[in-house]
Amino acid sequence: MAHIDLGVDETRFPGITGPMKFRSETAKPLNELAEVLLRAPHSMPAGERELIAAYVSGLNDCDFCCNSHSAFAAAQLDEGLPLVQRVRADLDTAPIPDKLKALLRIAGAVQRSGREVTAEMVDAARAQGATDVEIHDTVLIAAAFCMFNRYVDGLATFAPEGPEGYYVESARRIVEHGYTESL
Amino acid sequence: MAHIDLGVDETRFPGITGPMKFRSETAKPLNELAEVLLRAPHSMPAGERELIAAYVSGLNDCDFCCNSHSAFAAAQLDEGLPLVQRVRADLDTAPIPDKLKALLRIAGAVQRSGREVTAEMVDAARAQGATDVEIHDTVLIAAAFCMFNRYVDGLATFAPEGPEGYYVESARRIVEHGYTESL
Repeated sequence: MAHIDLGVDETRFPGITGPMKFRSETAKPLNELAEVLLRAPHSMPAGERELIAAYVSGLNDCDFCCNSHSAFAAAQLDEGLPLVQRVRADLDTAPIPDKLKALLRIAGAVQRSGREVTAEMVDAARAQGATDVEIHDTVLIAAAFCMFNRYVDGLATFAPEGPEGYYVESARRIVEHGYTESL
Repeated sequence: MAHIDLGVDETRFPGITGPMKFRSETAKPLNELAEVLLRAPHSMPAGERELIAAYVSGLNDCDFCCNSHSAFAAAQLDEGLPLVQRVRADLDTAPIPDKLKALLRIAGAVQRSGREVTAEMVDAARAQGATDVEIHDTVLIAAAFCMFNRYVDGLATFAPEGPEGYYVESARRIVEHGYTESL
């Protein structure tokens, strides 16, 4: 049970959805941020941006967010959940483009601390063709999930069993309706 | 110099202000989130909410955010910057109300990981009169600054010397105009 009374049946509104029902004033900018970062038109496909979110959520041990964004990434990547799981298990050997790998290394540094991002990591991403907007958005996606993960776990919200079940249904809603209309 | 070309004179647009000029699409929800959490009408005074932001930014070693929100807290607390500095130096002995102290302990746990927040910490805050909204907002303010701090440092933005100078002027603008109109 969550640390506070969210006023909802937590099995029906698990993870971040309970706190978002509880406090709609903060839910609005949080969902807008997710929509811009993960779904708005972009040079990086939505599946790759969701993969960054899943990767950081895994590093933060946030089961709800990691299962959610792994499912959202899987639903939008041709290779599906097995690829997401390979990236999370071992980034170095995962079969993904070098640019995405370099961006995920930046995201991993951000998860530890903003100060861990080095000029060498940024140069490596740029050498693989990453643009300034892509580098910016990678840093902000990783930073934002250091927030979302702490929000979900800091309130001790309920997380359904993963990796499928609830999360596959949730992915269907997000892919179809997005973050600002899916609650 | 920042890791990417922010397209601004970084000495005029230091810290988070450069990335917000660079990417107005993400700046909008970020500023709206700060406005709701730190300035909207609330049972906790704005100065106390800014103190949580300053405290977490200090734990994350983010000079720009820590100096900024210390100045914003100082400008809205009767005891000014010396009190902010005492809280940051030693929370246990700082002369602040027990409720605020209990909420700052929750914020400190969130800074490490959402999973570090215990039922005992939440009970202690509640025993001092903290409401569910105050506990929720403390968790989310702390989580949000784990994002803002990583955003600012992950891009290696420029931070003016503190604790006063630029930050006192910035505090004047924020207190007068808020986060959504001050850029």
